[in-house]
Amino acid sequence: MSEVYAARRTRLKEYCNAGGSAAALVSRPANVRYLAGAAPPGAVLLLGRTEDLLVCGPSADRPPQERPDEALRVQTLPGAAGGDPAVAAAGLAQGQGADSLAIEEHHLTVARHRALGSVAPRLRLANLGGAVEQLRVVKDEEEISCMRIGAEITDQALGELLESILVGRTERHLALELERRLVDHGADGPAFPTSVATGPNAGRPGHRPTDRRVEEGDFLSVCLGATYRGYRCEIGRTFVIGTAPADWQIELYDLVFAAQRAGRESLVPGAACRDVDRAARQVLDSAGYTEGLTALTGHGVGLEIDEDPQLSPAAMGKLDACVPVTVEPGVHLPGRGGVRIDDTLVVRPEADGGPELLTITTKELLAL
Amino acid sequence: MSEVYAARRTRLKEYCNAGGSAAALVSRPANVRYLAGAAPPGAVLLLGRTEDLLVCGPSADRPPQERPDEALRVQTLPGAAGGDPAVAAAGLAQGQGADSLAIEEHHLTVARHRALGSVAPRLRLANLGGAVEQLRVVKDEEEISCMRIGAEITDQALGELLESILVGRTERHLALELERRLVDHGADGPAFPTSVATGPNAGRPGHRPTDRRVEEGDFLSVCLGATYRGYRCEIGRTFVIGTAPADWQIELYDLVFAAQRAGRESLVPGAACRDVDRAARQVLDSAGYTEGLTALTGHGVGLEIDEDPQLSPAAMGKLDACVPVTVEPGVHLPGRGGVRIDDTLVVRPEADGGPELLTITTKELLAL
Repeated sequence: MSEVYAARRTRLKEYCNAGGSAAALVSRPANVRYLAGAAPPGAVLLLGRTEDLLVCGPSADRPPQERPDEALRVQTLPGAAGGDPAVAAAGLAQGQGADSLAIEEHHLTVARHRALGSVAPRLRLANLGGAVEQLRVVKDEEEISCMRIGAEITDQALGELLESILVGRTERHLALELERRLVDHGADGPAFPTSVATGPNAGRPGHRPTDRRVEEGDFLSVCLGATYRGYRCEIGRTFVIGTAPADWQIELYDLVFAAQRAGRESLVPGAACRDVDRAARQVLDSAGYTEGLTALTGHGVGLEIDEDPQLSPAAMGKLDACVPVTVEPGVHLPGRGGVRIDDTLVVRPEADGGPELLTITTKELLAL
Repeated sequence: MSEVYAARRTRLKEYCNAGGSAAALVSRPANVRYLAGAAPPGAVLLLGRTEDLLVCGPSADRPPQERPDEALRVQTLPGAAGGDPAVAAAGLAQGQGADSLAIEEHHLTVARHRALGSVAPRLRLANLGGAVEQLRVVKDEEEISCMRIGAEITDQALGELLESILVGRTERHLALELERRLVDHGADGPAFPTSVATGPNAGRPGHRPTDRRVEEGDFLSVCLGATYRGYRCEIGRTFVIGTAPADWQIELYDLVFAAQRAGRESLVPGAACRDVDRAARQVLDSAGYTEGLTALTGHGVGLEIDEDPQLSPAAMGKLDACVPVTVEPGVHLPGRGGVRIDDTLVVRPEADGGPELLTITTKELLAL
C-alpha cells in the first residue's frame, strides 16, 4: 500500500510546485488519511521541501485498523505543550528552508492561519484549495473494493431488519438496531447518522429519528451506510407497512423509482453532472413535484459521505470512470410522508457493463 | 425560556459594543445553540444593528426537540442558491448599516472569511474570539438540570450493563449496547463516542473500541455519557472481571481513586484550575506515575463535551460556582492495562454542600 500513498503525495507535490509552492500543509482529516494512510485526531501532513512528515498531537489515539504509511516519518508533539500540529508543521516547513507553504484555506480557521503566520513569518502562505479533494474524486480499485464490502455490510444489516417485526417500534430504536447490525457485520461504524422515518416523516431528506412508532399503512424510509476501512457508502429505501400499499403510495413510489432509474442510467463516463441531475429531476418535475425537491439528487462518496462531484442543476464538470456517486431523488408530501430511493454506484464505461451498483437491496415496493 | 436567550444575546452585544463592533456573527454551532435555542446544521446567528436573525441554509433538518427562540426572526436561504449562511449574514449586517462585524476567527475558515469580505466590503471584520464560550462557562440551574438528567440516564445505562454477562463480549459490542441503553432511557444520543477498553487497553484515554473480547482477570474501563436537550456529561469507571482482583490491580485502583478524590475535593469556588489539576496529579506523581499522564485531569462540560475551563498544569483562571467539570485522572501501563475514574461534578460553595456529584455510580472496585 505504501507506494499508493507515496504516488498520491507525488501528484500533490507536482501540483504545488507548478503553483509555485515548495511545501504544502494538509489539515483536513480525510485528506490527511488519503495521503498518509491514517489520520490520528488533529494530525496534519507536511509535504516538505526535504521530507514529508505526519505531525500528531499528544496522545492521539489511533484507530487500530489505520496505520500511517511506513514511508512517512511520524512526529508526535510533546504532551505538555498542548500545541497545534499545524502550527508546529509550519515551523518545520520554514526550518526546511521553504519560502512558501500551500495550506487548505477551506479547512484552517482564521485563528490558526494567524498562528501559522506568527510561528513562520518568513513563509508566504498560499492556498492549496481543494486540490486533494480533486485527487480523491476518481477512486482506484482498492478503494472501490472497500466501498463494495461496506455496501455488502449495509445490505446485510438492512436485510435482517426487514425480516423482523417493525410495527410498534420507534424510529430511534430501528436506527440504533441498524447501526448495531452494521458493526456486527464488520463495519468500522455507520458512515453517517442512520435515518429512519415513518408515516408523515417518511421521505424527508436527512430526517433525524424521533420516538414516533411504526404504524400499519405507513411509509417507512430508511437511509444508512457502513464505513469500511475508512470508506463510506449509502443506501436509501422506502417500504410500506401492512398488507397492501394504498394507490397514492404505489403512484408516488413508481414515480420516484422512475426518477432514480433515469439518474442511474445516465451515469456514463463523460456525462455532465448537471445532466444526471436533470435526468432524475425532470421525471419528478413533469409529474408536478417541483416544490421542495432537494438541491442535489446525488453526490460523490468515499472517505467522506459527501464529496465531489455534486449532482445538481448548477453543477459544473463531467463524470469520469471509477467515480462512486449516490443517486437519491425523493418526494416528501407534508403531512402525508413520501419516498426516497438511494443507491451508491460506480461510474463505469459501457464496455465494462455500465454503472456498477454497490447497494443491491431490492427496489421493489415491499409491504412489510 | 425566550427571556433567557434574549438576556444571553444582550450580554454578548454589550461585550461587542464595548469592543467597538456594532454587530456580531456567531457561527460555531454550540454558540449558536446557546444564544438562539437551536442550531440547525450550518445556521449562523447575526446580532445585528437593528435586528437579530438566525440565518439557516436550505432544507436544514431541525432536531424536533430544538426550537429556535421565538423572539428571533429565522431567515432560510433559498434551496437553489446553495449559499453560505455566514456570507448571507454578513451581507445583511452591512445592509443594516453596521460598519464593523465581530466574527469567530477560531471557527470561520480562511476561505469563508474571505467570502464574507467580498460580499460586505464596507464591513470591518473584527474578532469575537471566545466571548460566547466564556459566557457559557457558568451554567444556570436550567442548564444544570439538563445535565443532571443526562447523568441519571448515563448511570442507568451503565448500571444495566453491569448486571449482564460480560465475559466473551467485544469492546465494540459493549460500547454499542451502552449507546443503545442511553437512547432507551431518553438521551438525545451519546455525548461522545463511547469508550470500552479491556485488558491491556483498559485505562487508555479515548480508547476506540476494538474487537477484543472481555476475559477473566481483565481490567475493564468504560467511558460514556448522555446528551440530554443538548447538554452533555461524562462518566468513567474501571472494573475487574472475575471473582477477585489481583494485588497490582487493587493497588493501581486505590491510587487512581485517591487522585480522583483529591481532585474532586479541591473543587471549590475560587480554586485555581491548575491547583485542582495539581491535587489529582501529585497523587499519581508521588507514586512514580509521571510518564504518560494525560495533559488534562479534567475539563468543563455543557453543550460540548470539552469546554472551558481546562484542568491542567498550565491552566489560567479560577473556578466559579455553577461550573460543571469532569475530574478524570488515570494511569495506563503499556501491555498491562490501567484505571481511569471520571465524574462530572458542579462546583458549588461549601455552604451549599460543596461540589455536586452528577454521576453517582459507585466508585468501589467491583469484580464483575
